[in-house]
Amino acid sequence: MDTLLHDIAGIVGEQNLLTGADVTARSDSWPAAGGCQARAIVRPADTTQVAAVMKLCHAARQPVITHGGLTGLVGGAKTGRDDLVVSLERMREIAPVNRVNRTLTVGAGAVLQTVQEAAEQADLMFALDFGARGSATVGGAISTNAGGNSVIRYGMTREQVLGLEAVLADGTVISSMNSVLKNNTGYDLKQLFIGAEGTLGIITRAVLRLRPLMSSRNTALVAVADFDALPRFLRAMDAGLGGTLSAFEVMWNDFYRLIIGDGSRHGRPLGDEYPFYVLIEAAGSSEDIDRLRFEKALEEALGQELIVDATLAQNRQQRAALWAIRDDIETMARALYPPVTFDVSLSIPDMEAYVDAVRARLTQRWPDARMVTFGHLGDGNIHLAFTIGSLEPAQVSALEEIVYGELAPMKGVISAEHGIGLSKREFLSISRSATEIALMKTLKRALDPAGILNPGKIFSIDEGEAS
Amino acid sequence: MDTLLHDIAGIVGEQNLLTGADVTARSDSWPAAGGCQARAIVRPADTTQVAAVMKLCHAARQPVITHGGLTGLVGGAKTGRDDLVVSLERMREIAPVNRVNRTLTVGAGAVLQTVQEAAEQADLMFALDFGARGSATVGGAISTNAGGNSVIRYGMTREQVLGLEAVLADGTVISSMNSVLKNNTGYDLKQLFIGAEGTLGIITRAVLRLRPLMSSRNTALVAVADFDALPRFLRAMDAGLGGTLSAFEVMWNDFYRLIIGDGSRHGRPLGDEYPFYVLIEAAGSSEDIDRLRFEKALEEALGQELIVDATLAQNRQQRAALWAIRDDIETMARALYPPVTFDVSLSIPDMEAYVDAVRARLTQRWPDARMVTFGHLGDGNIHLAFTIGSLEPAQVSALEEIVYGELAPMKGVISAEHGIGLSKREFLSISRSATEIALMKTLKRALDPAGILNPGKIFSIDEGEAS
Repeated sequence: MDTLLHDIAGIVGEQNLLTGADVTARSDSWPAAGGCQARAIVRPADTTQVAAVMKLCHAARQPVITHGGLTGLVGGAKTGRDDLVVSLERMREIAPVNRVNRTLTVGAGAVLQTVQEAAEQADLMFALDFGARGSATVGGAISTNAGGNSVIRYGMTREQVLGLEAVLADGTVISSMNSVLKNNTGYDLKQLFIGAEGTLGIITRAVLRLRPLMSSRNTALVAVADFDALPRFLRAMDAGLGGTLSAFEVMWNDFYRLIIGDGSRHGRPLGDEYPFYVLIEAAGSSEDIDRLRFEKALEEALGQELIVDATLAQNRQQRAALWAIRDDIETMARALYPPVTFDVSLSIPDMEAYVDAVRARLTQRWPDARMVTFGHLGDGNIHLAFTIGSLEPAQVSALEEIVYGELAPMKGVISAEHGIGLSKREFLSISRSATEIALMKTLKRALDPAGILNPGKIFSIDEGEAS
Repeated sequence: MDTLLHDIAGIVGEQNLLTGADVTARSDSWPAAGGCQARAIVRPADTTQVAAVMKLCHAARQPVITHGGLTGLVGGAKTGRDDLVVSLERMREIAPVNRVNRTLTVGAGAVLQTVQEAAEQADLMFALDFGARGSATVGGAISTNAGGNSVIRYGMTREQVLGLEAVLADGTVISSMNSVLKNNTGYDLKQLFIGAEGTLGIITRAVLRLRPLMSSRNTALVAVADFDALPRFLRAMDAGLGGTLSAFEVMWNDFYRLIIGDGSRHGRPLGDEYPFYVLIEAAGSSEDIDRLRFEKALEEALGQELIVDATLAQNRQQRAALWAIRDDIETMARALYPPVTFDVSLSIPDMEAYVDAVRARLTQRWPDARMVTFGHLGDGNIHLAFTIGSLEPAQVSALEEIVYGELAPMKGVISAEHGIGLSKREFLSISRSATEIALMKTLKRALDPAGILNPGKIFSIDEGEAS
C-alpha cells in the first residue's frame, strides 16, 4: 500500500479502506453488477474525516469520485482504476425532526426512503420521491438535483434544501447549514453544489425542508382527444383545484396501448382508442371537501370538452391500479427489449411536433422500431422509450442523433432530471452555449483548481485549459 | 469628457450618457432625494450595449454600479464620485405572456407592477409582491432575491425565475434563458446572479415563472394566547387548508396596540388584550368550497384552543380593513419617529426568547425607547422596529449591537429579505462563517477579477486579496 492510502487508512481506519476484491465486488453504476475499478474505496465516518481525506488527495492530485446510492442513470459515478472512491455509506445519521421549523438535518449518506419515513413519523412530508427511493441517498439526490413524482407541486430537489455542508477539493469545509426559508446574507453558496454532480465539492450533510402531510388523495384517469387540449386541461385543473394538483402524468396512446395490451395484468379502465391519457391526482387535507372539488373540476372539464372520458378511483385499490399503469416500466422494458430511454424537456406547444418528427425519422431508419412517450407534461418533461433491436454503440448513437437532433432547433433540454454525467456529455452543447460552458469551467477551476473532483463528468477540461 | 465616456457615448448615444447636474438630480437610494454622486449615468438600450459598455469599463478598470428602481433598503446601489452607473431604465420590454408554458420574458428594467399586470391580463399571476411594486424593477428584485408577501406559498424571487441573461464584468453575455421547470444540463448558472446584489454580473433579461391566478380569498384576524400556540396554529392551518394558505402574518401585542390605539383610523376588530394576533389568508379557486374549508379550519383551531378569538372578513372592504392594520407602516413610523428597523430570521422556537431579550436590553439602555415586533412567522422572518429618540450613528450602532448581539448565539440571520449591501456589511460574519465569506470572495474573483462590479457591497476585498 502506498503512502497516500496508508495515510488515509490512518484517518478512517483500516476496515474502512477497501481495496482489491472488496472494490471489484462493488459497482459504480445502475443496475449494480460489480466490477468497480478504483485504487480504493474510502468510507469516512464524518465530515472531519472527509475533509482530512480530501486534504491528502488534494496534495497528491488524487482524483476522487463520490459514491452514494449509485442509482444515477448517466454514469455520473463511473470510476477508473486510478480513481479513489469516497463512499458516504456510513454518514447516514438522521437527526430528530424539528416539528416547529419543519426541518430535518441528515447525513448525505441517508437513504431517501428512511428520510421520508422519519418525516412521516412526525406527521410531515419530505416532498422528494422517485422510484429508486429504497437505495438513492440524499447526497446523490442533491448532487443531481433529482426530480421525480412531486415536482409539479413542490419543485425539484433544489427547492427542498435549506442548508448544506460540503467539503471542497482542498479539504475546506463549507458549512452553510441554514435552516430558515429566508436568508439573504450574501451569496447562496449551497446552490453551487446542488446539481453539480460531485464536481465542485462533496456534500456531507443537509438541512431539508419538510411540508405538511396531506391526508386526502383524489385520483382519476382521463382521456383527451387532441394535444392542444392537454395544456388547457392542465391549466383548468391547476386553477380549479386551488393549489392541490399533485400529479399530471400524460401517456401517449402508444404507451397506454402497450401497457394495457394483450396479456396485460391491468384491466382496461378506459378504452384504448384515445390519443392521450392523463393520470391526474390532487392531494389535500379534507376527504369530503376535496372530493367535491375534484369531481366538480372534472365535470367542468368534460362540459368544456377538454377531456372526453374519465374514470375516478373510488378507493385505495382503484387508485393503486391507475398508478400501476403509469408506473409499469417493467412491462414497457420487456416489450421494448432492449430499451433505450431519454429524458427531455421542451416548450409544451412544441411537444406534439417534436414527438411526431422523432417517430417519423425513427421508422424511416428502423422500420421495425417501436417508440412510446409519457411523462410529466406539467413540468415540460417527457420521457421517450425506444427499441431499435440493438444496443450496439453505432446504432444507439444514430438514435441519439435523431432524438437530440430534433430537439436542438426547438431549444429543448437534453436532460430534464437525470443530469449529464458521462453519457450525455457530448451532447451538452445542444442545450448550453459555449459561453455558458466556459463559465461552468471557470467555476470548476475556481473551486477545484487541481481538477480532482469527479473529473470528466458534465464536461472535460483539456490539459491546456486546466491552468 | 474623457476617452472612456466618449467611447461609451458612441455606444449608447449622447442623450443616454448623463453627467453633471443630470446625475446629481438623481438618487442612489430610497427614499429618493437627489444627490447621486457618479462620473456618469449610462442608459443602454439592450444587452448588446450593456456588453459593449462593460468591455470598455473592464479594460479601463472602471467601477460600475447597476441601478434599477432604487427601492433597496441596505445601500446596495450607493455610488461614489468615481463610479459609473449603468441604469437599466430603458430595458423594460415585456414580451407577450406564454400562456401554455406559463412564462413571461422581460427586460431587467421592467417595473414589478407592470409585470404583475401583464400576467393578470393573461389570467395568470406573477407571485412576487411587495410594497415597492410601483417602482422596483425585476432586475433589482432578482439581484436581491426579494421576498415579500407571498413567500409562504410561492417562495422567494429565486423560485420565480426560470431563466436569466447576465453580462459579466468583462462584457461576456451569459444567456441562460431557460423556460422549462426541469433542466439538469450542467451547473444552474442563473443561481450565481440571483441575490448577488449586482456584484457578479448585470442581469439584463429574465424568463419568469407564472402561476395560476387564484379567484377566491378568505381572510381572518385571530388572537393567540401564547407564543407556543403560534407554530401549532400555523401547522394546523397549513395542513387544514390543503395548500391554499397564502399569508400568516403575526403581530405582537405591541404592534397591534400601537396601530389600533387612540386616534386610530382602523377601528378595533379584536380587543387589544391578547399577546399575539395573526392575519391569516387562504387563496383558492372556488368561493363556496374554500369558504367552507376556511371556516371549518378556524373552528377546529378554536376548539383546540390554538386561537382564542377570531374575526372573518365578510367582504372585500372588511378584508382590506384587516390588511390595512398589518400594512400601516406609516402610523408605525410616525409613532416611532425616528424609526430604526431590522429584518431578521431565526428558528421559530427561539423567537419569543429573542424578542424578550432584545426588549429587556433595550429598555435597560434607553428607558424611554419603544419597540414593536411583527412579521412573516411562517417564513421564520420577523421585523423589529424601534425608536431610541435618535439616529445618531453611535446610538444606532449600540442598538445594532443589541439586535445582532442577541441573534448571534441563536445562529440567527441578520438579513432575511433585504440583503447586505453596504449597511449590513460589517455584521455579515454574524450569519456567515469565515470560510463561507472566503468562498464568496473566490467566486467574486473568478467572475470579476478586476473587482469593478458594485465593489465593496456585501463584503470588501482588500488590496492584498485582489490578486
